[in-house]
Amino acid sequence: MATTTIIGLIAACLTTFAFLPQTLQVIRTKETKNISLNMYIAMTAGVILWLIYGILLSEIPIIIANLVTLVFSVIILVLKLKYK
Amino acid sequence: MATTTIIGLIAACLTTFAFLPQTLQVIRTKETKNISLNMYIAMTAGVILWLIYGILLSEIPIIIANLVTLVFSVIILVLKLKYK
Repeated sequence: MATTTIIGLIAACLTTFAFLPQTLQVIRTKETKNISLNMYIAMTAGVILWLIYGILLSEIPIIIANLVTLVFSVIILVLKLKYK
Repeated sequence: MATTTIIGLIAACLTTFAFLPQTLQVIRTKETKNISLNMYIAMTAGVILWLIYGILLSEIPIIIANLVTLVFSVIILVLKLKYK
């Protein structure tokens, strides 16, 4: 596999799973005061559009990466609205 | 411009500028307790790799989007370390 592709795959994993520790922290602490509601509204809307984009192009990596990010983003958004 | 391209551009703007309200909130409130340190370490590292990936491919959209996200991510990370 080309070095560029490997760098891209590691980059995709890091920026996708970056949301995992934030999701776990919100579930554990039930505290969301310092988390921006507008960030997670924009992120959730953006990731849904990336998902539609991936489906229209039939690009499995775009679909999978954004499905995973969508799960984290929706959980954080719902808990932000619940615990605000 | 194709519908798919327009959807992709809107998606890119949303997921890039989603970090702006969070950055402004942290600067304004100086409070970062509920923000995950590991999220912004992984996000910053991932965005740097996306930037290298974009430079290696000479893809201006990837370079610009990740430069913008890098600015927001580094500000949040530095303020998280400062106000923890």
